[in-house]
Amino acid sequence: DPKLKVFTCNSNPALALQICEHIGVTLGKANVNHFSDGEIAVHINESVRGADVFVIQSTCAPVNDNIMELLVMVDALRRASAKSINVMIPYYGYARQDRKARARDPITAKLVANLIQVAGVNRVITMDLHATQIQGFFDIPVDHLLGVPILAEYFLEKDLKDVVVVSPDHGGVTRARKLAERLKAPIAIIDKRRPQPNVAEIMNIVGHIEGKTAILIDDIIDTAGTISLAANALAESGAKEVYACCTHPVLSGPAMERISASKIKELIVTNTIPLSEEKQNDQITVLSVASLLGEAIIRVHEELSVSKLFD
Amino acid sequence: DPKLKVFTCNSNPALALQICEHIGVTLGKANVNHFSDGEIAVHINESVRGADVFVIQSTCAPVNDNIMELLVMVDALRRASAKSINVMIPYYGYARQDRKARARDPITAKLVANLIQVAGVNRVITMDLHATQIQGFFDIPVDHLLGVPILAEYFLEKDLKDVVVVSPDHGGVTRARKLAERLKAPIAIIDKRRPQPNVAEIMNIVGHIEGKTAILIDDIIDTAGTISLAANALAESGAKEVYACCTHPVLSGPAMERISASKIKELIVTNTIPLSEEKQNDQITVLSVASLLGEAIIRVHEELSVSKLFD
Ligand SMILES: Nc1ncnc2c1ncn2[C@@H]1O[C@H](COP(=O)(O)O)[C@@H](O)[C@H]1O
Ligand SMILES: Nc1ncnc2c1ncn2[C@@H]1O[C@H](COP(=O)(O)O)[C@@H](O)[C@H]1O
Repeated sequence: DPKLKVFTCNSNPALALQICEHIGVTLGKANVNHFSDGEIAVHINESVRGADVFVIQSTCAPVNDNIMELLVMVDALRRASAKSINVMIPYYGYARQDRKARARDPITAKLVANLIQVAGVNRVITMDLHATQIQGFFDIPVDHLLGVPILAEYFLEKDLKDVVVVSPDHGGVTRARKLAERLKAPIAIIDKRRPQPNVAEIMNIVGHIEGKTAILIDDIIDTAGTISLAANALAESGAKEVYACCTHPVLSGPAMERISASKIKELIVTNTIPLSEEKQNDQITVLSVASLLGEAIIRVHEELSVSKLFD
Repeated sequence: DPKLKVFTCNSNPALALQICEHIGVTLGKANVNHFSDGEIAVHINESVRGADVFVIQSTCAPVNDNIMELLVMVDALRRASAKSINVMIPYYGYARQDRKARARDPITAKLVANLIQVAGVNRVITMDLHATQIQGFFDIPVDHLLGVPILAEYFLEKDLKDVVVVSPDHGGVTRARKLAERLKAPIAIIDKRRPQPNVAEIMNIVGHIEGKTAILIDDIIDTAGTISLAANALAESGAKEVYACCTHPVLSGPAMERISASKIKELIVTNTIPLSEEKQNDQITVLSVASLLGEAIIRVHEELSVSKLFD
């Protein structure tokens, strides 16, 4: 369909190309460069008049540059008379700033939602939001995709025996249950408690671990503090092997050292965030979300085309 | 007045401190840091409830980080019940993207205006916008201050003889006239012409230069291509000495080498953008805009207090 156009900015061009390949379209021609002073220079090199445009951009690090690239590109597309502007944000940055944890905190996840809307976006497609409430920060449609089916498929192919799926904290239990259902496995929860202020946390494991293959699951692994402590606690509790998985491999700061020093046998992640070369090693397996995201674009585009009949 | 609070982000803390000194207030307590993954973490460490808050932040390089710092801080202040949020942007980045120079260009100066407004800003105070039309990009009050009086004062104190003020291009004639009026000097204009495509530009000087002290003036000096070519053309046309001045010293890329290799005797700039150490040398004089900006805060705050009487 000539009226479907896919563009990308600079955060994850490899994923964008995979998605285009899945859909069977060529990537839209655009330059997203920087002027000498660091300001973003976007130029769209083909007509988008009347087209349903999809822009693929994860707002991973460098997060502020990636957000601005997206907003400037959306501004250019809107002024170039695109019919609809749909942004695909495989990893939605600032999602952990989703509430006032303390007085006088910002709620940056909501701020970013407002920025995206004011730039002229018609629809957002994203994956595994840190808090699903973030969908409500938008007044436009949000399609929310899950990484669990992709992770589950990988583990099913591995055909592991005697699995238990473990949530590293209370907040992740729903996610762990979804994976456990697909693997037909029980769940366990790590219940961190600080008995007194300034005393080290105790990792209390709720569930049976002894002799089992444990699979830790989280949405984001950032500095890997939680996940590596959890893995070691599982190993001490008699787990035979410990796998860990997540959708969004932020892996900042000490993450790589912590993971390699931990009891994690294998870490399975997706390519919502690209891994720089120094983060690629035998311990880490990357699964692609390209066909999931490609299907989402096809489905949304069909919906937009069908709705045209009723316009 | 306890109800006037001034905060700064990280782009130009030295200027913010000077402004506070001028007003006689202490800088508001806030942390603007980065999480391990590069996301901005803002925390306001004192009550701003009911206060007229001023946030000082130039959106110079790193421009996207500086814009986001400002927006996140504004979000936090608004949620902390500030009565009014006034942002002082001594240098307004992206101002040169103020129109569609080509089809399918973004208008990023307008996008940034929208971002600032959606974050919850009530008023903008800025200096020497590249295009005064940018004031119209906002639907909130914009106070627009000029650097010319500060530059003029410096040249008047120098007591130069036989001065001509030169605009390096057509767009800057109004600015050159303002400086010339204060110096009681005539103006000249450099009229760049490209006789044929792919032939070097000819610098045609409109006005009398021979034997005079030329003062080039621009709003922004970025890579210094225009200004150094202009200075050399003036010297070739018999100018006795060439000074150059601007409000906003962006000075990116080859700027420093070009300036030092040019016929510019002295470059006078202001501190709307801080100069990194490698940009500080004997050829460059920095004038402070702190008292101008401090007075603007006092005036706006008075206006806000007076209007309260009528609320
Ligand atoms: N980029 C970030 N890196 C680390 N911590 C963050 C980040 N953004 C927000 N936070 C903090 O993480 C906490 C929220 O995480 P969670 O409890 O997992 O939802 C809050 O205390 C936030 O201040
Ligand atoms: N940050 C920047 N650095 C260099 N050129 C820019 C920048 N932003 C915009 N421009 C270009 O500068 C031109 C506008 O400058 P002017 O003609 O001086 O108003 C347009 O062609 C813009 O594409």
